[in-house]
Amino acid sequence: MSVDAQLPDKVCLHRGEHLQLIACGHWEYATRTLATGAVGIVAITPDERIVLVEQFRIPAGRRVIEIPAGLVGDQSDLVDEDLLVAAQRELLEETGYQSERWTQLVQGYSSPGLTDEAITLFLAEDARKTAPGGGDDTESIVVYEVPIREADAWLATKLAGGVGADLKLLAAIHLANQAVNRS
Amino acid sequence: MSVDAQLPDKVCLHRGEHLQLIACGHWEYATRTLATGAVGIVAITPDERIVLVEQFRIPAGRRVIEIPAGLVGDQSDLVDEDLLVAAQRELLEETGYQSERWTQLVQGYSSPGLTDEAITLFLAEDARKTAPGGGDDTESIVVYEVPIREADAWLATKLAGGVGADLKLLAAIHLANQAVNRS
Repeated sequence: MSVDAQLPDKVCLHRGEHLQLIACGHWEYATRTLATGAVGIVAITPDERIVLVEQFRIPAGRRVIEIPAGLVGDQSDLVDEDLLVAAQRELLEETGYQSERWTQLVQGYSSPGLTDEAITLFLAEDARKTAPGGGDDTESIVVYEVPIREADAWLATKLAGGVGADLKLLAAIHLANQAVNRS
Repeated sequence: MSVDAQLPDKVCLHRGEHLQLIACGHWEYATRTLATGAVGIVAITPDERIVLVEQFRIPAGRRVIEIPAGLVGDQSDLVDEDLLVAAQRELLEETGYQSERWTQLVQGYSSPGLTDEAITLFLAEDARKTAPGGGDDTESIVVYEVPIREADAWLATKLAGGVGADLKLLAAIHLANQAVNRS
């Protein structure tokens, strides 16, 4: 289908509390009901470690290793939250790290055939631990600091142990390598 | 929530033709109705180019650059299809490329808070064009061969032009760099 094609009308098949199922002609996809965006953080410590999180994910049915990330605008008091502010909030909440050196990186889709979810990635350099982290009351997040140059081998060991991985993690390792090689 | 926690029962909120919306306690997520898996291909030509595709994606509402990828088991005659066979089929259908050197890489989730979709990545080295590609009757796929070492700059130019990107693409560039540096 070309970019100029007239798309069929969108029909809401079901509106849940957090997700909606949409049909557009023969195509179906999921979209979030409240969130206006999503952010992910490539956080790098002064000694070139990347800050990663592990948490139980209900859809996956197991613990999954990811970069710190979160939704924007999904809480009624934060509807107009700026992407960078959301990234700073999520990094602190999930990991207890803060940074003074933020750079907005690429925005991309997590699975553009299945959802309109687009995630804006941020680089947070010189990230330092200032708080316990671990997420909000509903989350139980384990935080790792992994040397960037050993991250692939570390991940392979974790996967062999039965933990899952978010593929954005590999994108983040790529971006972290770029940042370290540049500096 | 710990990995040992007893999860609430899963409830199907809506079953579409391709996607279902599932609730598990307070959590909601999307799952495919038919597909049993998904594959993505990091295809590298003999002169160290990565093979990428661009197609219009209804959820994104625009053209998106991705790695060649596809579903496994979503057609009634291919329910028991092997992951490698599916990857070989998708690479040929979408791009017209074939390879004799396949390696299974990492499996990971595309967005483990939103969907159970897990994608198994394959490396296809020495990939050579043997057919026109372009996808099936419903797809209109543009194929690119991008030098791996220039892929980040190439992508930045494409994004600046208004095309979207699947974040798995950055994961694929990372894996392609590893493959090229290893050989």
